Parts: sequence; C-alpha cells; structure tokens
Amino acid sequence: MTRRFTALDTLDIRFPTSRDLDGSDAMNPDPDYSASYVVLRTDEPGGPEGHGFAFTIGRGNDIQAAAIQALAPYVVGLPVDATLADLGSLWRTLVHDSQLRWLGPEKGVMHMAISAVVNALWDLRAKRAGKPVWRLLAELSPEEIVDLVDFRYLTDALTRGEALAILRRAEAGRAERTARLLADGYPAYTSSPGWLGYDDDKLRQLCKTALADGFTQIKLKVGADLADDIRRMHVAREVCGPDVRIAVDANQRWDVSTAIAWVRELAPYDPWWVEEPTSPDDVVGHATIARAIAPIRVATGEHVHNRVMFKQYLQTRALSFLQLDATRVAGVNENIAILLLAAKFEVPVCPHAGGVGLCELVQHLAMFDYVAVSGSMDDRIIEYVDHLHEHFTHPAVVRDGRYVTPTVPGFNATMHEASLAEHTYPGGAVWAPTA
Amino acid sequence: MTRRFTALDTLDIRFPTSRDLDGSDAMNPDPDYSASYVVLRTDEPGGPEGHGFAFTIGRGNDIQAAAIQALAPYVVGLPVDATLADLGSLWRTLVHDSQLRWLGPEKGVMHMAISAVVNALWDLRAKRAGKPVWRLLAELSPEEIVDLVDFRYLTDALTRGEALAILRRAEAGRAERTARLLADGYPAYTSSPGWLGYDDDKLRQLCKTALADGFTQIKLKVGADLADDIRRMHVAREVCGPDVRIAVDANQRWDVSTAIAWVRELAPYDPWWVEEPTSPDDVVGHATIARAIAPIRVATGEHVHNRVMFKQYLQTRALSFLQLDATRVAGVNENIAILLLAAKFEVPVCPHAGGVGLCELVQHLAMFDYVAVSGSMDDRIIEYVDHLHEHFTHPAVVRDGRYVTPTVPGFNATMHEASLAEHTYPGGAVWAPTA
Repeated sequence: MTRRFTALDTLDIRFPTSRDLDGSDAMNPDPDYSASYVVLRTDEPGGPEGHGFAFTIGRGNDIQAAAIQALAPYVVGLPVDATLADLGSLWRTLVHDSQLRWLGPEKGVMHMAISAVVNALWDLRAKRAGKPVWRLLAELSPEEIVDLVDFRYLTDALTRGEALAILRRAEAGRAERTARLLADGYPAYTSSPGWLGYDDDKLRQLCKTALADGFTQIKLKVGADLADDIRRMHVAREVCGPDVRIAVDANQRWDVSTAIAWVRELAPYDPWWVEEPTSPDDVVGHATIARAIAPIRVATGEHVHNRVMFKQYLQTRALSFLQLDATRVAGVNENIAILLLAAKFEVPVCPHAGGVGLCELVQHLAMFDYVAVSGSMDDRIIEYVDHLHEHFTHPAVVRDGRYVTPTVPGFNATMHEASLAEHTYPGGAVWAPTA
Repeated sequence: MTRRFTALDTLDIRFPTSRDLDGSDAMNPDPDYSASYVVLRTDEPGGPEGHGFAFTIGRGNDIQAAAIQALAPYVVGLPVDATLADLGSLWRTLVHDSQLRWLGPEKGVMHMAISAVVNALWDLRAKRAGKPVWRLLAELSPEEIVDLVDFRYLTDALTRGEALAILRRAEAGRAERTARLLADGYPAYTSSPGWLGYDDDKLRQLCKTALADGFTQIKLKVGADLADDIRRMHVAREVCGPDVRIAVDANQRWDVSTAIAWVRELAPYDPWWVEEPTSPDDVVGHATIARAIAPIRVATGEHVHNRVMFKQYLQTRALSFLQLDATRVAGVNENIAILLLAAKFEVPVCPHAGGVGLCELVQHLAMFDYVAVSGSMDDRIIEYVDHLHEHFTHPAVVRDGRYVTPTVPGFNATMHEASLAEHTYPGGAVWAPTA
C-alpha cells in the first residue's frame, strides 16, 4: 500500500540561555535559544518520524511555529516514497507557492519555515535509507543532486551544466574522501571563549581550554567597544600564540566606514577573518569593506537569506569564507545550491553553527561538500559551540578539535522527548514562574 | 491625565479577487488581495483609532496577522502623546528588538508587521493633528524629519547631515508646492488594462478607457509568453499611439540573460520602463540588466525589503525608477529614509500601489516627497488600480489621470466596518461555503 504523511506538528521549544549570558554578542545581548520544532509523521506502523526545526533566539518563536504549521497542508496526505524520492519538486512547490511567496519572497519567517519542513523531510528520507544525511547526499549521482536544485535566478553565475561539471569532477575520489572523513572527522573551531558577556579572566581561561581541547581556531565577538576589543584580542593572542587562528565576529554592528576603521585597529592581532561586519543585506558594503581591509578577509552568511544573495556576495568577491546556515535558507536543497555556487567561485564554506541544533545539522552539509562537491577541507572549518547538545538523542561530537563524522541514520535533529516537554513555551517546566 | 494605548487588535481580511483574475500576472496567477488590518485604540473617550495594515495576497495572511499581534506588548500601555511625538524612537524599538530581529533581520513577515503598526501610529497622529499624513509630514522641520530616520547601514551613501541639507534645500517653495498639489493633484498611471488574465479585446478596450480617463501612462504585465507579450504590446501601442507611456512589468519572472533578451524583443514598442525583471534581491543582476537594455530603464521596489537594499540599487545604478511600497518596508519612517536616498541619487520615486489600500497610503508618501524632499514631479507618477477602493471610508480618488490630493485627517487607511465584517477570513460572509 502507498504510505502517506499523516501529520506535520510543530512545537515552540525555548531554552532560557539569557539567564547565563551564553551567546551574548554586540547585537544579541540576551538570546533565549529556541527551536520551532517539526515532527513529521506517516502511516507506516512503527516507521520513523522526520524531525527538523527553525532556529530562533526567543521572542517570535511562536510566529515561526505558526508559519511552519501553515505548510502542513502542503505535505500531509502526500505519498511518502514518491515525495521523498523527488524533494526537488516539493521544494519548488513550497518556495514558489504564489500566495505565500508574497510574504518573502524567499526570506524571513516563511523561508525559515520551509527550511524546517525540508530538513525534516531529509531527516526522514535518511532514516528510512539507514544513512546519515551527509552520506545519503554524497552517494547520489550528479544528475540526482542537480535535480534537487532550483537554478532560477542563478544562471548568470551558475548553470545546471556547470553544476553537473563540478559534481562530475568530484566523483573521482568520493570513496577515498568518505574513508578519510570516517577516520579523521572534519575540522572545528570554537566560539565558546569569546562571548561579549564574559570577563577577561573567563576569556583567558576559555582560550586555554580551547587549546587543550585541540582547537586550532577560535572566535571572539567584537563590536561593542573598541578599547575592550583591542584588550580582549590582546589577551586571546597572548594565550593562543601566533599560530592559532583567531576570527572576530561583529554580528552586523557596524556601518561600512566604522567597520573599516575598527578592523584596522584590530589588524595588529592578526584576525583570521572578520565576520558580519555590517548588515547581511549589504553586498555592496561588504565588497567595499573587503577591498579596504585586505589581506584580512570577510566572512558572512548566517543571516544571508537565500541563494540569490550568496550569488551576489560571490560575484562581487564580498566574502572570502561562506558561512551557510542550516535553517535560514530553505533547507538542504537550497544549501546544495549554495555549496555549488561556492565551489564555482572557489570560496571555502565554513558553516555557521551554535544556537541549538545547528552543529548537529551543518556537519552533514560540510561533509557532503567535502565528499561530493568541493572535494576539499582546505581552509574549511565548522563552527562549534558546546551548548545544549545534551537535548539531542545523537548530538554532534567534537573531539581533538574535529567533528566526529556521524554515522547514525538521519540528520541528528531529534531531541529527547523529555527535553521537548520541559522546554515547551510557555507551558514547560523551565518556564514555570518561580513563585 | 496621560492618555495611553489600550489595545492593538488585528483582523485577517481577505478579498476573493482570484475569482475574477483581477491582479493576475506572471508570478501571481490567482491572488486573493488581503490585509492584516490593525486597529489601535487609546483610552481617550471618543478619540480616534489608528488604522494600518500589511498587504498580502491570500494564504499566509493569518501568519502576517500573528506577527502584528506579537507587537502589541510593545505599544499597549505606552503614553499616547509622548509616543506619537517621537515615532523615531518607537520605530527603533520595534525594528531592533534583539530577539525578534532574528526573524528577519528587517525583512519578510516581521518587517511587514512593523509597517502595519508604524503606519497605524501615523494614521492616529495625523487624525489627532487634524491633517492628512502627507501634510503632517511636510510641515515638520528638517530636523524633526531626520529624527524619524534610522541612518544605521546608510552612512556610506547618505549621512544625517546630507539628509538635512536635502530637506533644507526643499524648504524654500514648500508653500507654493502645497498649493499646487491641492489645486492639481499628483500624476497617476493605470495598471488596470494589462493583467495577464485578460484577452486582447479586453486589453484594447481597457487601453481606450484609460486614454478616455486622462491617463498618459499605462502598464502591461509581461513575462509568461514572449509571443503573447509582443502581440499585446503591439495592441496597446496601436491603441495608445506613440506619446502615451507604456511600462511593462515582469513580476520577477526572468533570469538575467532571459530578461535582457526578452526586453530587446519588446524594444520596438518603446517600453517606458521594465519593472521587476528578476529577483528583487538581485541588485547585481538588475545592474547588469540595466546596462544591457539602456536606454530602456529598470524600475523595481515593491518587493525590495528595506532601505539597505534600496541603498545598493541606487549605488549601483541598478534602477532608474524607485517603486517604494507602503507596507513592505517598516512603514512611514523607513520610507522617509528611502525618499531621502532617492533624492540624494536624483532618482524619481514612483510608488507601487494597487492591491488593497496601497493607493490610499502611497499617495501621502509621494506628496510629502513633492512638497518637502525632492520638490519635483518630473517623471514621478503613482500607480493606480481601480480595485477595492469602495471598502475604504475615504478612498483614494483619481480624476483626469491624477490623484486628487487628500485633505481628510489621517492616512486614508480606514475600512468600513461592514467591509471588515464581510471579508474577515474565514468567518466573513464572502468566505461562507456556497452549498
């Protein structure tokens, strides 16, 4: 019999991270890391559920959940096998719905809602195939991969034919790279030392911990106060020595001229990249900054809302490290388009992670890129923040400064039932008023 | 006593326009024009309400309404006089809320929600001042006007000082331009003849009607089929003669190279502008198209989501007509920033209208621009579509091809109670199942 999707449920899950200033930066002083969590069910007895989520930082997670719920009629009732076998078609249906499209198009709450649903579908497909998502993707043929991609608005930078050529070039060596990935994992850097809410002693101690843990790159939040940033960079460089890469992240705090002036002040401490120097919408501004601060390089992407924006960042050489996010753009399919664009322009992809569950998701995208797209780990590295992993049934694991390659079927997106219950907003135990 | 805001209510209002193919274009085959409508109440006995809305085209209007409702706690309880006297501050509070910001930033559903609230606040302020919004704005001092604007991310193109200089230059002549505006109104063009769902006879007839009604510019939807477009342009040019301006609108249908090739085929019919040739996010693509199709010019803006995007369109000369929208960006305040940017780059603003209530709103922005910002009507013109105006207590009025300058206090955003009741979704009479 034909199995069908029977339900797409959403949960408003929030973690009270603001209570400890974890995650504090120049633009986000008190985030409560949150997930609009999707549970996708089928009528297969005992069959797996698909799980996905959109990441937010607190207020508005209910709006995000409502947007995801609005997509349920597009999925519930569809045949499971046929839908999962052609996720490119469902992606187009969701993204190009002529009425919902007005609410973006392809940006913001509606686009993130699509990410949650699309990622849940990939989680389910991978669970049913008995493979982790990275491996499922990396074993598809070049033709199957490009069929997942919508080339609309991309063809002035990347055609279907060019994408196929990139993927075919990478077919040689897939097996060797898969073996290397399973043996050695994938490089990680840590953002844990550098949150703005931490004092210098905590920064110094966390830098030492990062080195002891085997990391060769760390990241510091900057942008609130120049004198503080110079002092903190000095502390970090002193502890880390000259060979560890220290990236800095301004979280969109600056205008263009401020960015240029500020980064020049930090230049003596040799920042590896400058992340989100200004508005994520400002391709032209990033290009101006990139030219002015060279050889220091620009990184951005966690708030870049779709493939059309990334295309322009690449066309104008406005970024040197592309930081895709797993739940900002419309899920796996759009991130494949972005990986292909980055490969075409020979720019390394260094995914944004942290938050809740982002490490779990993006490891699959970076590893797929290594095996089947760029074929390289050079200057590629995945962000890692050691927060909230305990809520996942199969959390991302970082050891000796590297992600351990996941082998469990699916997208590592599944949270423990108890975590979901406890953190449901506003009814869960952690949100109960303490009278 | 200090009057306070007591409620911010939202209504999901939808018009079944898809039943007649009104508003059909290459990307929007069957829109149901909708408004997430805001009612802002105070504790002033018998005092006016503030009305505003975000425009959508059907599905998702409930998500939009939920996003607006999430802003109620930011307004309810505030003192009315002090809040209305300093709408620049409230704008910043809404736009830069550190948690809600993650859902954009400054784009999509959350940004449109802010537009609805901000515009309702302006409606209320104008009603209490006994003036139409355009006049209220045009009588502010240059300093008061720039205080409404957030220059964050704009300063590489427009500083506060430059904005002040633009406004001070326009102070001379404000009185004369106000008088002229009240006497003569403001130029309008009509999009009614050119919807894709209409056949050639209806197109021909509606072109004749447009000429008879005094319009000197019309607009045709294009982009679905090249042969059809050539034939329809031929029909329209034949009826209109050489002197009437015929703009064409592709509603984002094309990739860059398709846009260039298609527009060249239409060039013999002398299109006045080409609107939305590709993705509204693609500044670089629009710039490429603009260079390739010159002297035919590019217009865009109805889906350009904030001032940072418009800044780049202007910096790269990617558009020659700037089509701001009243409810896409964050309301009056952000549109003032956009008017100032356009004035700096000497690009005419030709607002997007139509939908439901957009004509009512944008007339105020264009008229304010004429009196106090650009000081010019040259090549400026406001879109007009003769749909759904009957639902407003004080609809926009177009006579002899010109908007009649509104004089009633407020933003002309108020709908009839009966219209609201009848079109509430899904409970209203027009949505009742016909058994």
